[in-house]
Amino acid sequence: MVVLVVNSGSSSIKYQLLDMDDENVLCKGIAERIGIPGSRIVHKKNGEKFIVEKPMVNHDEALKAVLEILKDEKIGAIKDFNEIDAVGHRVVHGGEKFSGSVLITDEVINAIEEFSYLAPLHNPPNLMGIKAIMKLLPGVPNVGVFDTAFHAKMPKKAYLYAIPYEYYEKYKVRRYGFHGTSHRYVSKRTAELLGLDYNNSKIITVHLGNGASIAAVKNGKSIDTSMGFTPLEGLVMGTRSGDLDPSIVTFLMEKEGLSAEEVYTILNKKSGVLGLSKNFSSDMRDIEDKALENDPLCRLVLDIYEYRIAKYIGAYAAAMNGVDAISFTAGVGENSPITREEICENYLSFLGIKIDKEKNNVKGKEMIISTPDSKTKVLVVPTNEELMIARDTKEIIEKGLKQLDY
Amino acid sequence: MVVLVVNSGSSSIKYQLLDMDDENVLCKGIAERIGIPGSRIVHKKNGEKFIVEKPMVNHDEALKAVLEILKDEKIGAIKDFNEIDAVGHRVVHGGEKFSGSVLITDEVINAIEEFSYLAPLHNPPNLMGIKAIMKLLPGVPNVGVFDTAFHAKMPKKAYLYAIPYEYYEKYKVRRYGFHGTSHRYVSKRTAELLGLDYNNSKIITVHLGNGASIAAVKNGKSIDTSMGFTPLEGLVMGTRSGDLDPSIVTFLMEKEGLSAEEVYTILNKKSGVLGLSKNFSSDMRDIEDKALENDPLCRLVLDIYEYRIAKYIGAYAAAMNGVDAISFTAGVGENSPITREEICENYLSFLGIKIDKEKNNVKGKEMIISTPDSKTKVLVVPTNEELMIARDTKEIIEKGLKQLDY
Repeated sequence: MVVLVVNSGSSSIKYQLLDMDDENVLCKGIAERIGIPGSRIVHKKNGEKFIVEKPMVNHDEALKAVLEILKDEKIGAIKDFNEIDAVGHRVVHGGEKFSGSVLITDEVINAIEEFSYLAPLHNPPNLMGIKAIMKLLPGVPNVGVFDTAFHAKMPKKAYLYAIPYEYYEKYKVRRYGFHGTSHRYVSKRTAELLGLDYNNSKIITVHLGNGASIAAVKNGKSIDTSMGFTPLEGLVMGTRSGDLDPSIVTFLMEKEGLSAEEVYTILNKKSGVLGLSKNFSSDMRDIEDKALENDPLCRLVLDIYEYRIAKYIGAYAAAMNGVDAISFTAGVGENSPITREEICENYLSFLGIKIDKEKNNVKGKEMIISTPDSKTKVLVVPTNEELMIARDTKEIIEKGLKQLDY
Repeated sequence: MVVLVVNSGSSSIKYQLLDMDDENVLCKGIAERIGIPGSRIVHKKNGEKFIVEKPMVNHDEALKAVLEILKDEKIGAIKDFNEIDAVGHRVVHGGEKFSGSVLITDEVINAIEEFSYLAPLHNPPNLMGIKAIMKLLPGVPNVGVFDTAFHAKMPKKAYLYAIPYEYYEKYKVRRYGFHGTSHRYVSKRTAELLGLDYNNSKIITVHLGNGASIAAVKNGKSIDTSMGFTPLEGLVMGTRSGDLDPSIVTFLMEKEGLSAEEVYTILNKKSGVLGLSKNFSSDMRDIEDKALENDPLCRLVLDIYEYRIAKYIGAYAAAMNGVDAISFTAGVGENSPITREEICENYLSFLGIKIDKEKNNVKGKEMIISTPDSKTKVLVVPTNEELMIARDTKEIIEKGLKQLDY
């Protein structure tokens, strides 16, 4: 079965074509600057990179161009569109409705539209991608895989905020959590690598990309996660503040004469690592390099970044009353031995954690980085959301299901 | 040495007169409804209660009336004002300047005024009390004991928020923490009760009153605490939300058409236990009673309340890389065996905690409530902020100091 995975953002679309018989990536790429001068597709096949410059004014044109490339004799991987058996779409917000991936129907499209007020920057472009594919590949089934779905069954004590209850009833203000596909993939893979029974395990997954979140996965279910009503809450991120005294929001509005929208933008785009480093960089690689050169501000930023992660790990150990394994993933999680080492050594040895420094000296590869006698295991598990989307798509289509139940 | 302790709020003043030779409370009370019709003083001596109704239009008049009572032949405890050797004042906000109690001078008064923008509801009435006493008892030295002082030396990684650095430089937006006098008293007392070296210990103090906060006290120093820039952050409180996705603040403003001030009021006065319980009660005693009668909403509120405390305990165990003891204090902490038991049994046995249910069946008394083989000790330690204020006052006056260094 050949599955196309589509992750459709506001001005870019990532895609991956997989042969699901052996989970082999046939080719992949990204359509960039959609609707902006200089639009192009960066395409990769067998490690080779191809750049196709092409005007693409909207998602329809971009996906049409992507499909043409897939069929291209030289850089493509199929001869005819009917070789594509199904398309899996990343969808950011599934509200409270979707606790698993679904076959996309009119009803599902309406629901995704309905949840757009909860994810105004993400759900609309996700839908544009879905609708474009439906037009371009009529008759091919589409599957929606939600960022929120893995967290959708967390207990009420974890998802309710202590604000007037009516706001939950009226607007569904609650913790949703994001990066669910990544947390699901990594936690499952962690159990496999350690030979743990996934349904009888306590795993903390630490997803550290430009956006960052952490999840407590107990018996194969996400029971809590650091991103909340929106992806702003939780850890310190590239440009997002993460946790904050809520009164700072109103204090800054009053002192700086900011509107709600302006302060929201500052907290999402100008805060986090970027804001703390006085606009030096939002990229932890830059911060780490400077910190290792003993730059005091970057050393401080790295300290704050690690400290906040460590506190969440402690909190989630309490949430599950214990932890069997902690897995680091995504950009920083996969590629920064120093961040992993400092978190574990400075804060977590009370959990019986011991890091094997040699094994920890790994980037982007699966590895158990704790010592054999470490009471809680620590791992690096590169995430693979596209594969997870393709697997769900395959399962739904092959089994003729309407919805998966994680 | 006789010390008068004054805790001056906007419409009430609490006072306590102590003989510091044996730390005996001579008498105490509260002047209520200052500037409001029906003002009165509720005074206690030797367990007896006296109510004195008296018009008091401002803090000067209220403290004058309090002083008269102290000198009253029947219900007072002194014959002449010159028996009062010093007055200790609770002051909420010491900004970054005061990391210990201080002898009050003009310079200190100016600083407290300066920090009023950080605590507009608290510092001004605190100052009114100080100025009134200076007028009424000229020549008697005054000492300021700050709610923030114990936390003032926490490391930068714990007090900086991940927002643009300029807001720290410009407005001193940072974590301050409150309840410092309570956390200091309880942590010190915990070390004494356990025979621990306070300067070589890891103690988590859990102050659960109508306001609630938790502190990580490492080697006798507060290294982190849950209240932040204001007392809004952290645990679920009587009417305060505690932690929140900051984007909820702006979301509610936009959806409900609220001003910054209105949403701030909702988060401080209509949220927390009150908001979650659909306005049933802000008092955990009411919630607990109903929860034990299997009321599902109150059971949920109690679950959320406990869960959030447990997560902070886990987080602070990580912050200190271990924990020797956890102490519960203040209204709920001292008087709710079920809250203590459920937190420890449902979430914290991974720390090697075992609760002795019989010992835990205690209210308002010092008690080690964990079993002898519990790896981390758990205690009930009734707080005593007034005693701590009186002790600091005595120490500063006796030693002729300008400032204490905790």
